[in-house]
Amino acid sequence: MTHPLDAAIALTPLGEGRFAGATTPDYWNMAGPFGGATAAVMLKAVLDHPQCRGRPAALTVNYCGAVAEGGFEIAARLVRDGRSTQHWSVEQSQEGGGITTTATVVTGATRDTWAHAMAAPPAVAHWDKTPTSDSFAPVAWRKNYEMRFLAGEPRPLGPGGALMSPVTQMWVRDTPLRPLDYPALAAVSDAFLPRIFMVRGDFSPVATATLSTYFLADEAALARQADRPLLAVCDAAAFKHGFNDQSAQLWSDHGELLAVSHQLVWFKG
Amino acid sequence: MTHPLDAAIALTPLGEGRFAGATTPDYWNMAGPFGGATAAVMLKAVLDHPQCRGRPAALTVNYCGAVAEGGFEIAARLVRDGRSTQHWSVEQSQEGGGITTTATVVTGATRDTWAHAMAAPPAVAHWDKTPTSDSFAPVAWRKNYEMRFLAGEPRPLGPGGALMSPVTQMWVRDTPLRPLDYPALAAVSDAFLPRIFMVRGDFSPVATATLSTYFLADEAALARQADRPLLAVCDAAAFKHGFNDQSAQLWSDHGELLAVSHQLVWFKG
Repeated sequence: MTHPLDAAIALTPLGEGRFAGATTPDYWNMAGPFGGATAAVMLKAVLDHPQCRGRPAALTVNYCGAVAEGGFEIAARLVRDGRSTQHWSVEQSQEGGGITTTATVVTGATRDTWAHAMAAPPAVAHWDKTPTSDSFAPVAWRKNYEMRFLAGEPRPLGPGGALMSPVTQMWVRDTPLRPLDYPALAAVSDAFLPRIFMVRGDFSPVATATLSTYFLADEAALARQADRPLLAVCDAAAFKHGFNDQSAQLWSDHGELLAVSHQLVWFKG
Repeated sequence: MTHPLDAAIALTPLGEGRFAGATTPDYWNMAGPFGGATAAVMLKAVLDHPQCRGRPAALTVNYCGAVAEGGFEIAARLVRDGRSTQHWSVEQSQEGGGITTTATVVTGATRDTWAHAMAAPPAVAHWDKTPTSDSFAPVAWRKNYEMRFLAGEPRPLGPGGALMSPVTQMWVRDTPLRPLDYPALAAVSDAFLPRIFMVRGDFSPVATATLSTYFLADEAALARQADRPLLAVCDAAAFKHGFNDQSAQLWSDHGELLAVSHQLVWFKG
């Protein structure tokens, strides 16, 4: 049986770097597909391209306009084929809807180099000691993630109406279980409720404008992680003039930093 | 007299979103122009485009290949013109060199909304109490920034060869003095020595693969800041498999967060 994520990011090659895909109900969000599924399928177009070499190092996705339910086309173009990196430009479009999403991808040759970890994961309870959350979210994609919250579980505004912390810490993995790969890592980098919900406790309209994920893990690190939960940490620095930043770190359950991710979120008011 | 930064980002319109520019010796780096100057000129092409509305909200720059000394062309394309945001795709190319740089820009309508600051600037001495650094860097662009270090001034490896902190805190501004605007803010978001130099104390070859800057300040905040120094804070989480992340926050000297910036850096070994 095809995993729901694999169904959501399945692409049919049309030749010359063009691919056909389609949204799936499993990853529907409020008014379009889950941004993480879109990020994953933009990356997938590069990975499926016959000229792709190396492993993903960076992915930036710009959410330009609403993606309607149904089919879409993705065009991936190799902009620069260097010895140590490739640079790709990717566009998703829909008939009658123009360009809905743009992305850029950097791939890097897999190399063993000097390594040094400066950041450390927060000291938290292990995932098998942390209960799975059954908290409700009014979006279909939520059911495809098993979430175990350590801090910042979505909740209504506290007594007295005081603003709350923007921080979420959770163990998270795909459900049904699925071995971790780069598209799944790209998707989970967007699997946080918008920070304005966390801070204000209300559901103001929001939309990610742009998201960048840097993959620090090589293929071997993803294979080691397999289908066990990631420790995902999310924070934000400021809400101002209709936008807020959001930052995330995705850690293996053995304390290895697999990816960092940043986004700029538009909010209504 | 034209300010060196304005000379470096000057563009001549060629019609249909195309612009001609040229590198300048003032912003030369080791083997090409300073990445911050390239970021600024990519943004400038959007700002100079007759269809540009709103103020810059996000800029992602992908450094695809070496920019040679001399002329270049930038093409800016309005991908999506929404009510609250515009999405732009930008490419820089050189004759015989192909595409050297790609960028995406999100602009946002200037809006007063609910605002909330969660991050706070580090408690540091004010810039007028902090001496200007005369530390040497072997790159021309360094002389166009006045830097006053609070932590993490570039220095050789300490006794015993122990690795050092990746954190830099500095007051920084253009010199000659120049009122702050979005291109200058884009440029300064890259005005940190590579973190591998800070941690290891040696000059391994490095190159920024991709950089994203989110502008949280509106035009009024930039006008208030004028030509006084920004408090710039830079950190990194991990070096691994030939890449490292880098994160920066740019604060006004009154403690307002003007921009956050992230990059993925390739390093040799």
